[in-house]
Amino acid sequence: ARRYKIAVIPGDGIGPETIGASLEILQALQETLGSFQIEYTHLDWSSDRYFAQGKYLPDDWMTVLKPHDAIFFGAVGHPKVPDHISLWELLLPIRQRFQQYANLRPTRIMRGVDSPLKNISPESLDWMLVRENTEGEYAGQGGRTHIGQPWEVGTELAIFTRQGIERIFRFAYQIAESRSKKHLTFVTKSNAQRSGMVLWDEVAWQIAAEFPHVKTEKMLVDAMTVRMVHKPESLDTIVATNLHADILSDLAAAIAGSIGIAPASSIDPTRQYPSTFESVHGSAPDIAGRGIANPIATMWAGVEMLRWLGEEVAADAWMKAIEDVCAEGVLTPDLGGKEDTRGVTDAIRAKVIKNAK
Amino acid sequence: ARRYKIAVIPGDGIGPETIGASLEILQALQETLGSFQIEYTHLDWSSDRYFAQGKYLPDDWMTVLKPHDAIFFGAVGHPKVPDHISLWELLLPIRQRFQQYANLRPTRIMRGVDSPLKNISPESLDWMLVRENTEGEYAGQGGRTHIGQPWEVGTELAIFTRQGIERIFRFAYQIAESRSKKHLTFVTKSNAQRSGMVLWDEVAWQIAAEFPHVKTEKMLVDAMTVRMVHKPESLDTIVATNLHADILSDLAAAIAGSIGIAPASSIDPTRQYPSTFESVHGSAPDIAGRGIANPIATMWAGVEMLRWLGEEVAADAWMKAIEDVCAEGVLTPDLGGKEDTRGVTDAIRAKVIKNAK
Ligand SMILES: CC(C)[C@H](C(=O)O)[C@@H](O)C(=O)O
Ligand SMILES: CC(C)[C@H](C(=O)O)[C@@H](O)C(=O)O
Repeated sequence: ARRYKIAVIPGDGIGPETIGASLEILQALQETLGSFQIEYTHLDWSSDRYFAQGKYLPDDWMTVLKPHDAIFFGAVGHPKVPDHISLWELLLPIRQRFQQYANLRPTRIMRGVDSPLKNISPESLDWMLVRENTEGEYAGQGGRTHIGQPWEVGTELAIFTRQGIERIFRFAYQIAESRSKKHLTFVTKSNAQRSGMVLWDEVAWQIAAEFPHVKTEKMLVDAMTVRMVHKPESLDTIVATNLHADILSDLAAAIAGSIGIAPASSIDPTRQYPSTFESVHGSAPDIAGRGIANPIATMWAGVEMLRWLGEEVAADAWMKAIEDVCAEGVLTPDLGGKEDTRGVTDAIRAKVIKNAK
Repeated sequence: ARRYKIAVIPGDGIGPETIGASLEILQALQETLGSFQIEYTHLDWSSDRYFAQGKYLPDDWMTVLKPHDAIFFGAVGHPKVPDHISLWELLLPIRQRFQQYANLRPTRIMRGVDSPLKNISPESLDWMLVRENTEGEYAGQGGRTHIGQPWEVGTELAIFTRQGIERIFRFAYQIAESRSKKHLTFVTKSNAQRSGMVLWDEVAWQIAAEFPHVKTEKMLVDAMTVRMVHKPESLDTIVATNLHADILSDLAAAIAGSIGIAPASSIDPTRQYPSTFESVHGSAPDIAGRGIANPIATMWAGVEMLRWLGEEVAADAWMKAIEDVCAEGVLTPDLGGKEDTRGVTDAIRAKVIKNAK
């Protein structure tokens, strides 16, 4: 059997619940298929560790994570810690230091999940959002001067490198080329932001020329929200900056019915470093510990992790189980259902075993 | 009769058409009511002027505009000029140098205009979006180094000042206080952007304390898109940075049915400088000159201009005429109707005269 090493970081809030549910499915797949075996490293990197030891990450976190084939991540965020602390001490360093430069956010309308849009059918929406994940508005280099004075100035510095833009566009074009529509829309705000964003546009058109079979379109980020709401069927592969894609991917999840099912893969396409598989939703402290968290986003991330590892059979079995269970209306309250995490997980596990046999 | 001086800048594309239509209504209002008189300064500041004379604005543009009570603006943008040139040479200098720090974007669902959302009624959506309009991500201070080299770096520097944040929040709270829900949601991305955006949050809560009768809520910009789509009725006054509000206001217009009806007022609340009244949509070169542009966004901006001047009776008559004409289905093709600009304008003028009598 093929062997994989996976680092598991359940994190905060509902993270441990949705990760726990997903590990049960992975266990069932492993036992039923017998074709692969996963060795887990369980890591307690979370706000609780921060309260106890003053740090989210140990100093040698890169060394600890490096030997793994993937990182399976729950959620981070605690009401008692400012978000910019918890995120910059746990999630964002991993994305950035491990050069996970492509954040993939597939968006589809699952049968059984209700879109808030009129005139939309599951067939009419199938997007792959490719988010630049290491630079841009998340460079982290802003500052504050004259703190507390009436003349205080605070800045946020977005940094775009030609290298960073080229690699995300090449990756996005490869995805666009592999999909049937061969259509890529890149997002920008170069009418108002006339330096880094203009570089983004220039590099976009340059890489576009390398992929003549893909139809390329440019959209301004503001107009893109209108397009997503009014003409969802006209979009396919979408590539955007770190912040723009952060915003658009939440909108995408909302249009597809719920942020509770949206997965995200933070990928290093060179495979020099492990990639992270996580949900788009946060730690949801308000419902944590109540057993009602929707496990589907994390499970879908688990599916993407299996695909990344090359375990397509297992991935297909899991994804089909998720789709069938949604279609049958076995849903948590956030999707208008009456099931809890346990109920949804059991239903998916039963189908996974059937699908995998 | 009260007298006003208004500078008219039709600009590019459909701008001259929608401004022309609006001036007809202003003329009708003036004649019917007899209570005010407008003296216009017609300015040809546009891409055509740029082609002919190399400049959008004359050197003394501030002196030319300053004595006016308001600026009535069409649109700017030409296929042959990069947008960052046309905008930074015409629209953005006016917003910034005239300290028009509040950009107001009222959003409502007009009867007769179809929202793309299920489960929404005209009553359930009534937002006032308050956009910071002079700083933040539109500070314009980015740059490019090593242009054209593989190691090129491009930046965009967002600059937030305590002064700039305080004034937009005070203004937004005054609006929130004047509305029946007394509810303000401020938008931020301080989990990922940990300097300027954290200052934004700090100042927000400080000004919130000055307005104890207004309920204050903080939303992250990504989650805000979900809220707007899933719970539109839970929002009232919204305040956001220059870029965030740019994005959210297009989404708002899309949710309300069409970007073709959304107005924007770029206000200097101190009245030291004239304020600008414009539409949210652009110059739409694809339909320019065909007589089918939807004049309603510019007309609604005209209504807001009249309110700013204190001409409430005229403003109400015009707004009611717009609402009635929409409700009767006299609409341009972008709203699914069969009328052209002329037809909609005539219908509105007829009602305006009736309403004003
Ligand atoms: C938690 C937060 C820092 C993160 C982001 O903004 O990237 C999240 O919103 C996401 O989309 O993964
Ligand atoms: C034209 C463009 C520069 C402008 C902006 O981004 O502010 C427009 O989108 C708007 O919303 O008024």
